[in-house]
Amino acid sequence: MQDRPHQDKTGKDAPRLNPENPPDFAVTRWFNTKTPISRDSLKGKVVLVHAFQMLCPSCVAHGLPQAQKIRQRFAEDQLAVIGLHTVFEHHKVMTAEALEAFIKEYRFSFPIGMDEPQGAGAPKTMQAYEMQGTPTFLLFDRKGRLRRHYFGRPDDMLLAAEIMALVIEPKAAKKEESIAIERILAATLLVPGHDHGHEHGHGHHHHDHADGCCGHDHDHGSCGG
Amino acid sequence: MQDRPHQDKTGKDAPRLNPENPPDFAVTRWFNTKTPISRDSLKGKVVLVHAFQMLCPSCVAHGLPQAQKIRQRFAEDQLAVIGLHTVFEHHKVMTAEALEAFIKEYRFSFPIGMDEPQGAGAPKTMQAYEMQGTPTFLLFDRKGRLRRHYFGRPDDMLLAAEIMALVIEPKAAKKEESIAIERILAATLLVPGHDHGHEHGHGHHHHDHADGCCGHDHDHGSCGG
Amino acid sequence: MQDRPHQDKTGKDAPRLNPENPPDFAVTRWFNTKTPISRDSLKGKVVLVHAFQMLCPSCVAHGLPQAQKIRQRFAEDQLAVIGLHTVFEHHKVMTAEALEAFIKEYRFSFPIGMDEPQGAGAPKTMQAYEMQGTPTFLLFDRKGRLRRHYFGRPDDMLLAAEIMALVIEPKAAKKEESIAIERILAATLLVPGHDHGHEHGHGHHHHDHADGCCGHDHDHGSCGG
Amino acid sequence: MQDRPHQDKTGKDAPRLNPENPPDFAVTRWFNTKTPISRDSLKGKVVLVHAFQMLCPSCVAHGLPQAQKIRQRFAEDQLAVIGLHTVFEHHKVMTAEALEAFIKEYRFSFPIGMDEPQGAGAPKTMQAYEMQGTPTFLLFDRKGRLRRHYFGRPDDMLLAAEIMALVIEPKAAKKEESIAIERILAATLLVPGHDHGHEHGHGHHHHDHADGCCGHDHDHGSCGG
Repeated sequence: MQDRPHQDKTGKDAPRLNPENPPDFAVTRWFNTKTPISRDSLKGKVVLVHAFQMLCPSCVAHGLPQAQKIRQRFAEDQLAVIGLHTVFEHHKVMTAEALEAFIKEYRFSFPIGMDEPQGAGAPKTMQAYEMQGTPTFLLFDRKGRLRRHYFGRPDDMLLAAEIMALVIEPKAAKKEESIAIERILAATLLVPGHDHGHEHGHGHHHHDHADGCCGHDHDHGSCGG
Repeated sequence: MQDRPHQDKTGKDAPRLNPENPPDFAVTRWFNTKTPISRDSLKGKVVLVHAFQMLCPSCVAHGLPQAQKIRQRFAEDQLAVIGLHTVFEHHKVMTAEALEAFIKEYRFSFPIGMDEPQGAGAPKTMQAYEMQGTPTFLLFDRKGRLRRHYFGRPDDMLLAAEIMALVIEPKAAKKEESIAIERILAATLLVPGHDHGHEHGHGHHHHDHADGCCGHDHDHGSCGG
Repeated sequence: MQDRPHQDKTGKDAPRLNPENPPDFAVTRWFNTKTPISRDSLKGKVVLVHAFQMLCPSCVAHGLPQAQKIRQRFAEDQLAVIGLHTVFEHHKVMTAEALEAFIKEYRFSFPIGMDEPQGAGAPKTMQAYEMQGTPTFLLFDRKGRLRRHYFGRPDDMLLAAEIMALVIEPKAAKKEESIAIERILAATLLVPGHDHGHEHGHGHHHHDHADGCCGHDHDHGSCGG
Repeated sequence: MQDRPHQDKTGKDAPRLNPENPPDFAVTRWFNTKTPISRDSLKGKVVLVHAFQMLCPSCVAHGLPQAQKIRQRFAEDQLAVIGLHTVFEHHKVMTAEALEAFIKEYRFSFPIGMDEPQGAGAPKTMQAYEMQGTPTFLLFDRKGRLRRHYFGRPDDMLLAAEIMALVIEPKAAKKEESIAIERILAATLLVPGHDHGHEHGHGHHHHDHADGCCGHDHDHGSCGG
């Protein structure tokens, strides 16, 4: 995709994502929350971000119901679940008003933010996190570091186990403690078709593709029904 | 609902739906078809109309996939499957352009028409057919008579059996032949919780409600997620 | 398979299945019925036979629940649904007593017969009908003729449509009437990957294989979990 | 139930289950393992035991596939998954030979033991662990202590999160460390309809009943299809 930060049109090298200190969310409007959410306001909690588009079939059928189920299973003071509407196609119709109606009809209860648009391409947070499409899940630890990035459909067991591990990891965990948790996760969770054994492991991508994902790698976004 | 034809604001009795000669579709724009579709152009085929809204959860999860599956199971020259976008809420965001993107992303292959809006309430075809909400299925015989009207989620077996019966009923069926088919259907298909034994049986309603239906019986439309 | 009737061990040509006059069921014991069932006692009704084994995963997960659902959707005086326990492997453990417990625990309500064993191979009815394994569905018309034979997992719409067509076909249908019904079915129902266009069409096989079917084509039976 | 250890027929008080030092498995035969499994041989691993009956519908449809999925998701050197065939009804037909055929056809890959029978009632391990029926899940920590007991259908997220927490808990965890883990679990995992807030929390029962469970609380076992 032409407008990724490290391939930007100016020819300059854009800064790559640093999972130890990832960028804040660029959100133009929030739903289901009285006060805007920032990465600072989330410090101390594990955070699951679900990036979706309301016209992405796999998000509607799988990603969003899964995020809602996680919201109902894990306590809010331990885990924040946040939706991020990352519109990279059909910009004219996936508006704030449309999203508001969508959230109302589907009765999602977690906060959902609109990723800041940047013209015709991927919105700002999506670009900054180098997301490849929707649905995407990002998982952050209590210190705000990006620990997991899934494009596609990670299953319930995988997400729940990784969330639980990060809930157990202390807020004041030293680097060695985080590495120890990552080593246990790498030794325990079998990801079919993937080498899961990164020792530091922050922010590495897993791509559990499935029909219905919407990618924006090409000139025009494309979804699979 | 205040704007139903037989309760219209003028105080005059509006004409009630006549299933033997039901009204034509009032469609402002068609997708997935080069030429507009009218009830005349469908004469000779059995016709299944699926009335939906793109922001109705039960339509997206159940009704539309079912219509698509019926399209793939039954031959086009015997059965026409037609979608009807009957917007009775969130009018500002369920536009033609939004519907076009929705159809593209979900890859529906059957013709879909936009029911003609009438201000803030139910659109014209929806009103004329006295639909109570979405999802709704209408089933017409080869002569264009309305034979079934379901609000909610009729199951695959029920729809397939009734479609097959109407496919078998000759185009030139005499009244007695149609009554005979209806008697067989009434004697054969068990509809849980409903008395199915109407002898003439045209256009009677079944309400197989389920979570996620969107009704417009009250002042404000309401969906269930 | 070595013990099929037309390849029997005596070297003589065994009679091939005649769908116009198929053999009676060879059943050693019936459950869920006070009186034994024969093809004579079923004359006048459409009949769906589901051949299964209690240790066949696809039968337990798909075939038997589908047969039960069909039982609940179609009236008993129009359609008979009959289970047939066709044990061609693990004979020692799939006994009458085991089957009785199985039927009780799963709460199947339709009559189920035990196909007459013939040593280590396929039982008598299974052999006579040239079944290839389980799950298998056989569909008979009101005259007792075999009209469909599916090995694997035909879907709900296909079975319901074909059952409905045979329910509509008169008990005293002349040959031309039956051919007309078959022509309509062939013109209407699209069977993915199969040529469905047989004019007389009795007893032709469809193989909608799927994981979990148990076949007995080889020296030893094999199932897929 | 009359044959529970603390209500035994001799009138003597039977020993109640001690989750800190639960009894060993009484198994008469093992499948899918070359060497018998004892609680000693499992020390150091987290252990998930799934108690089932091959004629229990909910075990076949839910419990066993879930156990198999857990086996495929978690590494064997961190988590042992063990099936336990706890026959408390239909003893004559749920034999070793029947179980062997069942395991083969369903392709379960984890070790499965036959709980030692005790006449017509619940088998020995089932009784010692005070199980109420099938499906039941028992979860043990690396020290061999019983930490969870579910009768019914705990969901994938709940089981995966609790397994992961026990995988993280060190083998040489001091009592305070285990209590800390339990406190985090109690503060994090929301169990609908249950007070999950036990501080020490070993071996407390959750009953996530669902249709198809088989209970043995009454004179005669009963399943629900």
